[in-house]
Amino acid sequence: MQVVFQITSGEPDVQLSMLGQLHNLLQQAAVTQTRIGVEVVVHGHAWNLLLINGNPLSEKVQSLQERAVKFLICQNTLNSRQLPISQLLPLTEIVPAGIFHLIQRQQEGWAYIRC
Amino acid sequence: MQVVFQITSGEPDVQLSMLGQLHNLLQQAAVTQTRIGVEVVVHGHAWNLLLINGNPLSEKVQSLQERAVKFLICQNTLNSRQLPISQLLPLTEIVPAGIFHLIQRQQEGWAYIRC
Amino acid sequence: MQVVFQITSGEPDVQLSMLGQLHNLLQQAAVTQTRIGVEVVVHGHAWNLLLINGNPLSEKVQSLQERAVKFLICQNTLNSRQLPISQLLPLTEIVPAGIFHLIQRQQEGWAYIRC
Repeated sequence: MQVVFQITSGEPDVQLSMLGQLHNLLQQAAVTQTRIGVEVVVHGHAWNLLLINGNPLSEKVQSLQERAVKFLICQNTLNSRQLPISQLLPLTEIVPAGIFHLIQRQQEGWAYIRC
Repeated sequence: MQVVFQITSGEPDVQLSMLGQLHNLLQQAAVTQTRIGVEVVVHGHAWNLLLINGNPLSEKVQSLQERAVKFLICQNTLNSRQLPISQLLPLTEIVPAGIFHLIQRQQEGWAYIRC
Repeated sequence: MQVVFQITSGEPDVQLSMLGQLHNLLQQAAVTQTRIGVEVVVHGHAWNLLLINGNPLSEKVQSLQERAVKFLICQNTLNSRQLPISQLLPLTEIVPAGIFHLIQRQQEGWAYIRC
C-alpha cells in the first residue's frame, strides 16, 4: 500500500488534522499488518509545517518521520519564499515540483489523499 | 465505474454541494447506461451529515442511500466525538479508519473525489 | 503522463494558485522531456475563471490553453447559472457532468489533482 498526501494549507487546524490522519493510518496499517509507504508533499502555504523553529507541530512531524513517513518540500515553494532548506526539519527532502511528483506517484500506482 | 468520495467538512454549503454532485453523477450514469458503485467516506467535521435528528440534509442523504450510494463513517471519528452509531441514519456503515479505506479503494482501482 | 485537475472555487487566490501550479507542471515536464496531457474540470463556483470579460486571469488561462491545457466546463454548472457558453473563453470545452468526467479519466489511468 502506497500513498502520497498533498497539503497546501498553512493553517494549524488543517495541518494538525492531517498529522492525526497519518497517525490513524499507521495504526490501522499495524493492526492489519499492512506494509505501507507514505509521502507527504508540502507546498504552497504549508511550508511552515516543516520549520525547525517556532513550529508547534515539529515534534509530531518528527515522530512521523521516525515512523518512515517522508515529508517532501517543493523546490518552487522554497524559491518563491526564499526559504533556505537549513530552516527546515533535517529529514525533509526536496522535489523539484510538487505537482509533478504527485502526478508521477499516482501514475506509478500510488493512492492520493488531498488534505 | 467505481468511485469513493471523501468529505471532512461540517459546513452545510459544502455538504449540499456534494449531494448535488452525487445526484448529477447518478443521473449521468443513467443517461450513459453506466453501472456505477459509489461510496462516501465521512470523517472529521462531516459527521453531522449523517445525523438522524436536526439534520436538514437527512432526506437527501437517505434518498441517495436508496439509490445505492453507501455512506461510511470512520470509527475514529465516532470515538473522538463520543458519538453513538444509534444517532446516525440507519444505513450508515462503519469503517475502522477512513483514510485507510480511501487508500485501499484507490489501490483496488476506484476513482477518488475530494469534496 | 496524464492528469485531470478539479477546481470548484471562485476565489482569485485559489484560481491563481492553480494557474501557477499548471505553469510549474508544464515547466517540469519540459525540463524532464515528459509528454503530458492536462485537463482542468471547472465547476461549482469556479466558472468565473473562464469568463471573457471582467476576468483578471483570462490572459493566464489563454496562455495555458495555447500550451495545450484543456479547460472543460460542466454543463450542469452552465445550466444552474444560466450562463451562455458565448461568455466563456473560446477554447473552453463542455462536458455533460464534471464529476462523471473526473471519474472516467481516473478509471482510464489519469492522475487527479484537487485544487
